[in-house]
Amino acid sequence: MEGKENGPDGKKPGRVIDGPTNPMVTPLLNDLYQFTMAYAYWKAGKQSERSVFDLYFRKNPFGGEYTIFAGLEECIKFLANFNLTDEEIDFVRDSLPGCEEAFCDYLRGLDCSDVEVYAIPEGSVVFPKVPLLRIEGPVAVVQLLETPFLNLINYASLVATNAARHRFVAGKSKLLLEFGARRAQGPDGAISASKYCYLGGFDATSNVAAGKLFGIPLRGTHSHAFVSSFMSLDEIVDKALRSSDGKSTCEDFVSLVQTCLTKIQNSSSLHGVFSETNQSELAAFTSYALAFPSSFLALVDTYDVMKSGIPNFCAVALALNELGYKAVGIRLDSGDLAYQSTEARKFFCAIERELNVPDFGKMIITASNDLNEETVDALNKQGHEVDAFGIGTNLVTCYAQAALGCVFKLVEINNQPRIKLSEDVTKVSIPCKKRTYRLFGKEGYPLVDIMTGENEPPPKVGERLLCRHPFNESKRAYVVPQRVEELLKCYWRGNADEAREELEPLKEIRNRCIKQLENMRPDHMRRLNPTPYKVSVSAKLYDFIHFLWLNEAPVGELH
Amino acid sequence: MEGKENGPDGKKPGRVIDGPTNPMVTPLLNDLYQFTMAYAYWKAGKQSERSVFDLYFRKNPFGGEYTIFAGLEECIKFLANFNLTDEEIDFVRDSLPGCEEAFCDYLRGLDCSDVEVYAIPEGSVVFPKVPLLRIEGPVAVVQLLETPFLNLINYASLVATNAARHRFVAGKSKLLLEFGARRAQGPDGAISASKYCYLGGFDATSNVAAGKLFGIPLRGTHSHAFVSSFMSLDEIVDKALRSSDGKSTCEDFVSLVQTCLTKIQNSSSLHGVFSETNQSELAAFTSYALAFPSSFLALVDTYDVMKSGIPNFCAVALALNELGYKAVGIRLDSGDLAYQSTEARKFFCAIERELNVPDFGKMIITASNDLNEETVDALNKQGHEVDAFGIGTNLVTCYAQAALGCVFKLVEINNQPRIKLSEDVTKVSIPCKKRTYRLFGKEGYPLVDIMTGENEPPPKVGERLLCRHPFNESKRAYVVPQRVEELLKCYWRGNADEAREELEPLKEIRNRCIKQLENMRPDHMRRLNPTPYKVSVSAKLYDFIHFLWLNEAPVGELH
Repeated sequence: MEGKENGPDGKKPGRVIDGPTNPMVTPLLNDLYQFTMAYAYWKAGKQSERSVFDLYFRKNPFGGEYTIFAGLEECIKFLANFNLTDEEIDFVRDSLPGCEEAFCDYLRGLDCSDVEVYAIPEGSVVFPKVPLLRIEGPVAVVQLLETPFLNLINYASLVATNAARHRFVAGKSKLLLEFGARRAQGPDGAISASKYCYLGGFDATSNVAAGKLFGIPLRGTHSHAFVSSFMSLDEIVDKALRSSDGKSTCEDFVSLVQTCLTKIQNSSSLHGVFSETNQSELAAFTSYALAFPSSFLALVDTYDVMKSGIPNFCAVALALNELGYKAVGIRLDSGDLAYQSTEARKFFCAIERELNVPDFGKMIITASNDLNEETVDALNKQGHEVDAFGIGTNLVTCYAQAALGCVFKLVEINNQPRIKLSEDVTKVSIPCKKRTYRLFGKEGYPLVDIMTGENEPPPKVGERLLCRHPFNESKRAYVVPQRVEELLKCYWRGNADEAREELEPLKEIRNRCIKQLENMRPDHMRRLNPTPYKVSVSAKLYDFIHFLWLNEAPVGELH
Repeated sequence: MEGKENGPDGKKPGRVIDGPTNPMVTPLLNDLYQFTMAYAYWKAGKQSERSVFDLYFRKNPFGGEYTIFAGLEECIKFLANFNLTDEEIDFVRDSLPGCEEAFCDYLRGLDCSDVEVYAIPEGSVVFPKVPLLRIEGPVAVVQLLETPFLNLINYASLVATNAARHRFVAGKSKLLLEFGARRAQGPDGAISASKYCYLGGFDATSNVAAGKLFGIPLRGTHSHAFVSSFMSLDEIVDKALRSSDGKSTCEDFVSLVQTCLTKIQNSSSLHGVFSETNQSELAAFTSYALAFPSSFLALVDTYDVMKSGIPNFCAVALALNELGYKAVGIRLDSGDLAYQSTEARKFFCAIERELNVPDFGKMIITASNDLNEETVDALNKQGHEVDAFGIGTNLVTCYAQAALGCVFKLVEINNQPRIKLSEDVTKVSIPCKKRTYRLFGKEGYPLVDIMTGENEPPPKVGERLLCRHPFNESKRAYVVPQRVEELLKCYWRGNADEAREELEPLKEIRNRCIKQLENMRPDHMRRLNPTPYKVSVSAKLYDFIHFLWLNEAPVGELH
């Protein structure tokens, strides 16, 4: 991608951050009302009033009790390059009825040099109500960040969480491959999915663009179409294959494969398991092995896994073995994966044993048919021999819950705390510019997150602290933290020269995610009835919230 | 967006089609296995074998019996500009173990000049198993189109169908607004959603970028934050407002609003309905009206709809009315929308009657809180006064079903028909290069879609024809069509000079969609237990499918 209109203009100091991955992320990726409000603020002379907004979600997704925060890097890249082109400004003007020309001049000068962003580091395990980002700046500018920030964080965090949940159920030792490009919600859905699934603990993707953009390892074999594009072994013209050490050449690899197939057919324990295998499949496998002798992996379910796919694969793998190559394994894409993987493993082990081929039983078995958390869990309970899961549709579209509901709420303007009321108490916002801390207990697990007013003293290690539920007055606990971590760190200070957090490589973000997940108390993580993690406010903030609430809520009148 | 690396190169004749909307749609937006297969085809000398692939889905989404086909334009734009840059080729080479340099030369020369694409026109009502696209060309090239085409069509068709379903339940007369940008699956999810919801029958979007890219009407008001950013009426400094005809100026619009509020408070039928309204809300509304006097629309649920929002809105609307402006209406974003809209309508009508303000009762009421097909249906059953629905999360993420399962199957290679078998009969593919027709009955409704072999004579108006279920031998019907429409039209002929369909403006595609939906037999469309539309094959194709099936499927052996 090059030539982004909204890229850095090189004129402003300290702006050396690249633009967002997707060049379509411009200030126009916005709800119209952000611009109508900007205009109304500007008309009222309020556009520069200092405001503080919190970005947070209200409920963990997928019936779980944790969420992975992702999307921050893209937000900062967007913000660092925030600038409206003349063409964009013309379009905005034409979209606002009665818009004065002077407002266009105002838009022309807009950037984020007066904005500050504090955020929890990307890849962190996060919880409802605690601000993921605190954004401070001129109210009209900050409102223009609302829609793009929500768009960049909602799906990123949702799919990263989905990936983490799949990793949890699959276990550490399995290889997890993201195969979602074809079913994702649009091209960017695909590329973001690959990025954030990797962040959430996947090992690789099939998406070449994501591999190139983010350095994610790539995986892929061949499809059923490849198999059915072959008719017979006669099609293979160039039959020669050099041995792995380069010292010799097998002039007729096709015959070698056929010899190996006969050997399997005649071996005592495999005799009678299968009869004739499909010859077009054998031709496809042989041809694929000639192209990739050192990384041969075959899709074995085009015709019949046990009667054709596995024997054909083994014949080719044995032939490769004779030339010093080691086949990688197979992919199963239909049917009963538990049964097929177990039978395939038996077959491989029989060959290792009978034909004396070391490690043949360790062939990698990949499974990839409409998998999700539930099916992987069910496979585990049933017992299987799958080493790698390729997961697509359910993972990338977050089929079990297709949206995360992050919101962006005004909590302070002109140093006046603001609260958003609602008849639904879970929708009442927590006012004030706040600080947030994670308190850790004796065993090293995080115990509780606490929000305090900006100027309250921070919690201290070893000192007893009252943590209150923000809305339920009877829910309180004293905590003596063994470790205190301030959650919000400064990622953007506008033009100020002070230090701020650097954007980290994806791999480090991924490591943070994996490490934090490992450090969670197990009962928060389990799939069935997990224990909610506690989110609290200080006693002082509690009192202030309820003072403000009563102050703003109208008193009903009964007649 | 400009400067696309993969844009048209201007060198090849007849290529004047713009690139895809999203510049991230490049040949690398692909599963790795398309490249490993391309390499294996190339190694085997098979890369140019003429192949035919069908793109189709197996099941209508959302429990319905129809689907809207969308995404074709983006596919053609991608195909027309298909070309790998040197940087991309280097990356592919490094991703394929043992890749020969000569393959890079092959990739360098790749384009779609030998590819032909036949498709059903975008915006059509379509059904399972019938090819949406038939793609013909060199096997290695066509395989490289699989992932991008599926990606571009799956979500587009899914969300267009979702929009059409929302339109169906809301009814023709309601205004439907897409408000999904913040919750969509990534930036492109947002922009595609806006495009395809409009195609599926929505009237407008809040997404400014989509408005600019596709000419979709924009809608938007203000948020709760705007309301809570105001403290009191004293904040409003510039209180003057010119009358609508420009002939006079009201020097103190704030006082006029206050006078109007008192008038409402004192009117006989509204007296006692409310007491003090929230003053920061009144200040926000007044300020917003000063910015947009000719298009005033207010969000009225920040504090209390009936006790504060509606009276405040009416005061401002009345003040505007005195200066010759007409307010547009209100937006409700929480609570019981049926009740609130009905009460609001009563309030507006009371003002029209008592204060003698013509049309005040016709104020537009917009509702927008987590709406979906079910909630709109429930509102209809309950009775409401909503004129416009703003729908976000559920619409754009297709929450009820987050993915459509389009597939891309090889049906012929080197003039040899190919079939993909599966133990699950719904997954067996229909082989052969085919033609497809829609047959219409006496009442003008479509009756059945039929697939035939390429060289069979087309169905004729007035001639009796046997239509067979492709897999169920007992399901057959004679049809005498009153009209026959061939479904697949040529949208891409590679370098050939012959005529092909032009890409149409979005508005025409949208009109096709609306017209075709109106022309469907009502029982296919109903939400509960709709009648499946019939999809069939000719008697000749039926026989051939089953011949090929028996030919390819292995015969089991029982011992």
